[in-house]
Amino acid sequence: MNIKGKVVTLRAMEEEDQELLREMVNDPEIEKLVGGYSYPVSTNQQQNWFNSNSNSQNNIRLIIETKEDGAVGFASIVNIDWKNRTAFHGIKIANKKFRSRGIGTDTVMAVMKYAFEELQLNRLDGTIIEYNEPSRKLYCDKCGWTVEGVRRKAVFKLNEYHDELIVGVLKKDYERLIKENNYWDI
Amino acid sequence: MNIKGKVVTLRAMEEEDQELLREMVNDPEIEKLVGGYSYPVSTNQQQNWFNSNSNSQNNIRLIIETKEDGAVGFASIVNIDWKNRTAFHGIKIANKKFRSRGIGTDTVMAVMKYAFEELQLNRLDGTIIEYNEPSRKLYCDKCGWTVEGVRRKAVFKLNEYHDELIVGVLKKDYERLIKENNYWDI
Amino acid sequence: MNIKGKVVTLRAMEEEDQELLREMVNDPEIEKLVGGYSYPVSTNQQQNWFNSNSNSQNNIRLIIETKEDGAVGFASIVNIDWKNRTAFHGIKIANKKFRSRGIGTDTVMAVMKYAFEELQLNRLDGTIIEYNEPSRKLYCDKCGWTVEGVRRKAVFKLNEYHDELIVGVLKKDYERLIKENNYWDI
Amino acid sequence: MNIKGKVVTLRAMEEEDQELLREMVNDPEIEKLVGGYSYPVSTNQQQNWFNSNSNSQNNIRLIIETKEDGAVGFASIVNIDWKNRTAFHGIKIANKKFRSRGIGTDTVMAVMKYAFEELQLNRLDGTIIEYNEPSRKLYCDKCGWTVEGVRRKAVFKLNEYHDELIVGVLKKDYERLIKENNYWDI
Amino acid sequence: MNIKGKVVTLRAMEEEDQELLREMVNDPEIEKLVGGYSYPVSTNQQQNWFNSNSNSQNNIRLIIETKEDGAVGFASIVNIDWKNRTAFHGIKIANKKFRSRGIGTDTVMAVMKYAFEELQLNRLDGTIIEYNEPSRKLYCDKCGWTVEGVRRKAVFKLNEYHDELIVGVLKKDYERLIKENNYWDI
Amino acid sequence: MNIKGKVVTLRAMEEEDQELLREMVNDPEIEKLVGGYSYPVSTNQQQNWFNSNSNSQNNIRLIIETKEDGAVGFASIVNIDWKNRTAFHGIKIANKKFRSRGIGTDTVMAVMKYAFEELQLNRLDGTIIEYNEPSRKLYCDKCGWTVEGVRRKAVFKLNEYHDELIVGVLKKDYERLIKENNYWDI
Repeated sequence: MNIKGKVVTLRAMEEEDQELLREMVNDPEIEKLVGGYSYPVSTNQQQNWFNSNSNSQNNIRLIIETKEDGAVGFASIVNIDWKNRTAFHGIKIANKKFRSRGIGTDTVMAVMKYAFEELQLNRLDGTIIEYNEPSRKLYCDKCGWTVEGVRRKAVFKLNEYHDELIVGVLKKDYERLIKENNYWDI
Repeated sequence: MNIKGKVVTLRAMEEEDQELLREMVNDPEIEKLVGGYSYPVSTNQQQNWFNSNSNSQNNIRLIIETKEDGAVGFASIVNIDWKNRTAFHGIKIANKKFRSRGIGTDTVMAVMKYAFEELQLNRLDGTIIEYNEPSRKLYCDKCGWTVEGVRRKAVFKLNEYHDELIVGVLKKDYERLIKENNYWDI
Repeated sequence: MNIKGKVVTLRAMEEEDQELLREMVNDPEIEKLVGGYSYPVSTNQQQNWFNSNSNSQNNIRLIIETKEDGAVGFASIVNIDWKNRTAFHGIKIANKKFRSRGIGTDTVMAVMKYAFEELQLNRLDGTIIEYNEPSRKLYCDKCGWTVEGVRRKAVFKLNEYHDELIVGVLKKDYERLIKENNYWDI
Repeated sequence: MNIKGKVVTLRAMEEEDQELLREMVNDPEIEKLVGGYSYPVSTNQQQNWFNSNSNSQNNIRLIIETKEDGAVGFASIVNIDWKNRTAFHGIKIANKKFRSRGIGTDTVMAVMKYAFEELQLNRLDGTIIEYNEPSRKLYCDKCGWTVEGVRRKAVFKLNEYHDELIVGVLKKDYERLIKENNYWDI
Repeated sequence: MNIKGKVVTLRAMEEEDQELLREMVNDPEIEKLVGGYSYPVSTNQQQNWFNSNSNSQNNIRLIIETKEDGAVGFASIVNIDWKNRTAFHGIKIANKKFRSRGIGTDTVMAVMKYAFEELQLNRLDGTIIEYNEPSRKLYCDKCGWTVEGVRRKAVFKLNEYHDELIVGVLKKDYERLIKENNYWDI
Repeated sequence: MNIKGKVVTLRAMEEEDQELLREMVNDPEIEKLVGGYSYPVSTNQQQNWFNSNSNSQNNIRLIIETKEDGAVGFASIVNIDWKNRTAFHGIKIANKKFRSRGIGTDTVMAVMKYAFEELQLNRLDGTIIEYNEPSRKLYCDKCGWTVEGVRRKAVFKLNEYHDELIVGVLKKDYERLIKENNYWDI
């Protein structure tokens, strides 16, 4: 089933989303903000990636959609470890104007709701590059995540090494959060 | 051959039915009502599923159609065990307005007629999530099925475990039913 | 080469015939009249069947066509056993109005002419479900075939077992027939 | 599971049985006795046949084995039609000395027991070439089968056409038989 | 890792175990005791089955081994549903003498310990044919399982339909059991 | 080239090492000490794993060998990220008696020397399950690694969640260490 936030719907990727994803992965502004990196990606490569990455038992990749703007980003719940009940989560928002409108928060809330209340996971993992303060605020100040460690000098970007924050959230953190902020009720 | 109820016709799935099936499988309201679950499904995945699920000796998947509304749902007779003469049956109706118009009953009656009077099966199995009282009524009150057991805490949905009813119907139950209610004659 | 009766032409199946064949195979009225059976068939499955059943050394499948009405049915000469010089023959006429116009007789006559006078077969086999009296009349009263046996309770349809007539015709039966009735001359 | 008669065990074919099967299929004395025929078969061809004919849902091929003599023949339950609950049955005994020792009867009895009491079939079909009187006696006099028809001139062997007997047995025939002769109790 | 009971070790299947497994599956005495069934299985088929059934994320198949006797049976945790945290469990013991020595109980206890305390499952499912009272006692009297339902007439064996018990055990049932009987401590 | 410590040699895996690796992976005592887990592994699966895991650009797997005892364990440098110059490192020692003889330390020192002085990596990552104090001492007290974080409740073993230490070492940490302890000179 699709995953509903208050503003966003998270749905399976479609072929017509690939150009947006390719633009995002090729955009230096976005690459700077995330821990990962990518060589320049062609339309063909993007298509091949899409063809071999449909949703499966261990990896769920989703388009973030709003009624107003259509597809605005990408969210993933990947490397699901069912025995330990953990998974890795990340998001990318396509466009600056979307980044300050609560879409990020709603996406992370919806992902946690789905991961904890439907998939029965117990923990989500994430990483944040040290200087991406908006991302740290989104995850840790608004969505109940905790900085659990710092991988020193783990990412090389813009000609220097950067530390990478290890962040995580447990089901009980999420439960405490929604009890406090009544996210789904207001 | 196609399977005729009094109102519905059950026919093979076509490529043009896939968007309806995809909407149903992605609809959180419908997922809530059934025992199964699905990750968000893309157009491509739906197409692949269709391509590898044509009707065969052991699995029959059908579109429920009415003259008035065209395709309104999905019914299956799957995991046919010819030696034991059992199969698993399930239905999904697309849209709330269809759910209260006798389409469910007519579909289950037509499926039983076909399974027992043509395929020579002796038993159909089904499952109902505990809180889906309309489904229990449809199967057990109107169509002669029996609750044969309760798999405790077998389904996790909406952040808790739910019991799952095991329901079944034998050919002789169906024969008694139509003798009593003359379903096919009135 | 195409096979000519007095009214019908028997020609190879074309892609555009498949919808007619699919309707016939999905029609419960026709399934009732023949020995075989089929699960509901989709457009795709019909297409796949067509793609893998072009005419070959051992199986010839033909469209029955008339000038007036175009394609009206289907005839086959299959499981050809060249050593024993036997084959299995069957026909299906699409539509009730065609069934009483001599099309059936002309098709069987044309099939026998082709099978015995061109393919050098010595015998054709067929089966008739016990209650299909028109079919028995067509084969045995009009076309020289003989009921050679009865497979007791061999077909389950409409919720009961039915006997199946084993019918056959030898080249010499055909030769005697056309000597008597001068079929091809009048 | 393996199928037990009073004397014989029917078990899956093994690679080491193939030479026996090849000798049987290449033996003109045996080909004369059965309805079928085969071109000369090489070791390789036999191996290929074996590799593509393991037991499956619709075709069961079995070695007849006795404690005393090991593998002595071959029995099959093939073309299983689960909807109509029919199948085709045949046996071949390797060696004349085995043919008069009750092995044939015990095999047919064990096959019927398995087909009717485990597989839930309702009917078995067979064919007998007209002059194979021992085979007719085995099936019809000892094992409850009935000659249901005669396919005239259906088999060409030894430079002439022969009629082929159509034989069949229903579950109720088998039940009557074992009630009368107490086969499994004495 | 291997799974340790007090008496048994559960380890991955090896090629050299296949002959034992094949004997078990071909043994009519064992087939009578279990819900499933199998056509006669050849060495080759067994080998192919083995080659395509190595342990994986969703299906774990294990040899039951004791120091004294080596391989004595087979246990499985299959159809693991990680979202609902359920799986299907079954065992087969090869030989009558082993069936009365506590090997069954120790195997089921070890399977539960592994499923609940390592794999984090919440529920195990099983089925028992109605007349297999020793199996019901093993699961329900000794190992904390509950009969949750009865699939009426679900299994055809020995020429009649039999009911099939639906049994299940929850993690909390297992925890209560070992608290009461101190299984792992004595 | 092989990698030389003062006591150990790290060399490529051979087919004959697989039985040792299989024993290690099936040994519950070892599984308890590491972060990862494995279902029971057969000889065949181990062989398949070996066949698909030869050393490559991004993953180096090594046997730890001593003159005295031959193969005593396993070390890896995997998920090499050449752009960020990081990799993940882990070791397993087969047998308790080896674990207290300096083999662990010598292996980690040799791995660091190779990773930093030959591969030009800048950072190695590792994980330690919270209660494995000997492992923490080995890495952090003897080999210059730092605990950089704690993934809360990330590993489920022995029926409870455990924290997992995130450990790391930079090239400059290694350089400082060997300047201080002259590891390679004494």
